[in-house]
Amino acid sequence: MKHMKTVLVFSGGMDSTTLLHKLLRQAEAKRRLINNVAVGHNNDGDTVSCLSFDYGQRHKKELNCARNICRELKVPHKIVDIKKLKTLMAGSALTADVAVPEGHYKDKTMRATVVPNRNMIFLALAIAQAVSLKYDRVAIAVHAGDHAIYPDCRPEFIAKMNAVSRIANYESVQIYAPFLNMTKRQIAKLGQKLKVDYSKTWTCYKGLKWPCKKCGACRERMEALSAEKR
Amino acid sequence: MKHMKTVLVFSGGMDSTTLLHKLLRQAEAKRRLINNVAVGHNNDGDTVSCLSFDYGQRHKKELNCARNICRELKVPHKIVDIKKLKTLMAGSALTADVAVPEGHYKDKTMRATVVPNRNMIFLALAIAQAVSLKYDRVAIAVHAGDHAIYPDCRPEFIAKMNAVSRIANYESVQIYAPFLNMTKRQIAKLGQKLKVDYSKTWTCYKGLKWPCKKCGACRERMEALSAEKR
Repeated sequence: MKHMKTVLVFSGGMDSTTLLHKLLRQAEAKRRLINNVAVGHNNDGDTVSCLSFDYGQRHKKELNCARNICRELKVPHKIVDIKKLKTLMAGSALTADVAVPEGHYKDKTMRATVVPNRNMIFLALAIAQAVSLKYDRVAIAVHAGDHAIYPDCRPEFIAKMNAVSRIANYESVQIYAPFLNMTKRQIAKLGQKLKVDYSKTWTCYKGLKWPCKKCGACRERMEALSAEKR
Repeated sequence: MKHMKTVLVFSGGMDSTTLLHKLLRQAEAKRRLINNVAVGHNNDGDTVSCLSFDYGQRHKKELNCARNICRELKVPHKIVDIKKLKTLMAGSALTADVAVPEGHYKDKTMRATVVPNRNMIFLALAIAQAVSLKYDRVAIAVHAGDHAIYPDCRPEFIAKMNAVSRIANYESVQIYAPFLNMTKRQIAKLGQKLKVDYSKTWTCYKGLKWPCKKCGACRERMEALSAEKR
């Protein structure tokens, strides 16, 4: 049985937190099966390491959530400060002095929240980390709800990033995006099964004291979680 | 005639300096042709902007060369500090406390100078810059001499990066790598034609006061330039 070593691009939001739980559950199941494998930085078993980026996002609060979740789950976690790259990624409502649009997550107005080339940058950095740690793959929690607005969350983007990630280094790194064709509602459903405590995650793009409940991210979260309660 | 707006990944070494001259020459030729186009940040003509990275490389001297060359040629230039990413790209002789190998550029020992996922990171950042400036393409001066040792300089890598760069954002960005199948010697020959002053460029990986003349980068440079003098 191959032990997978995974760097997870981890925002501290609903989707990547659910993916973290899924990865840990997989590791646990394997450990039970072979009974001698431990989670964490252990050469003998599945390993999950989380990587978060401080890119000057308004909703920096998500990074505190990320930190707390990893601490609680005893998962190695690195927050990398890439604020100096903000000058390259200019023009988004998430990083610049542009109002966060309110409305539905799939509305065209939400395009203002696209950050230039964000996921390619995140994946490129996570792949570098995987190569230098000798890990096998990079996991990312993009999902079907992202497809309408974010080109760098679409199946075509993930397929092409996977193709280049396989050959860009001596070590072949796989891109693992198991939520690619799942809706946020399905992710919430999986999270429920995995007993994810979503009160510990952060979603709102505005990053104020409380979620605004009006931005696309808030609305998508509410829809997914309320569907779950039904 | 389409005016191309290009972000050049610019190290201040021989290859990217030659490419900068080539791009400026192309812009000039076009300007002569239509007689109303200016080089630089001008919406009416070809535009070239240079982007350099301070990634904690030993041979940081190349950044001074990059700065001086751009100043002299009056080309907009940005040096982005990505030293905080060093932790993700660990393990290379160019960034860590590992000796720079001496010998030929194509020797297997030169593998110690591979920086994990470096060109994917550089290109991902340059693409972000191109998207936020509304530029058409990203130029990079990888060449045939790099293929033996650096997986992220090979034609397959450039082709796959181009494929993903085309679709990763609402704005399609092209990867332009015109030296991909040229040897360093052929680049030097082109440089001679373009009257590039190579004394203003930096190549040596060790980054001491003078070039060491022993590392692979120095040897490749000397071979290319001495062939030119013959």
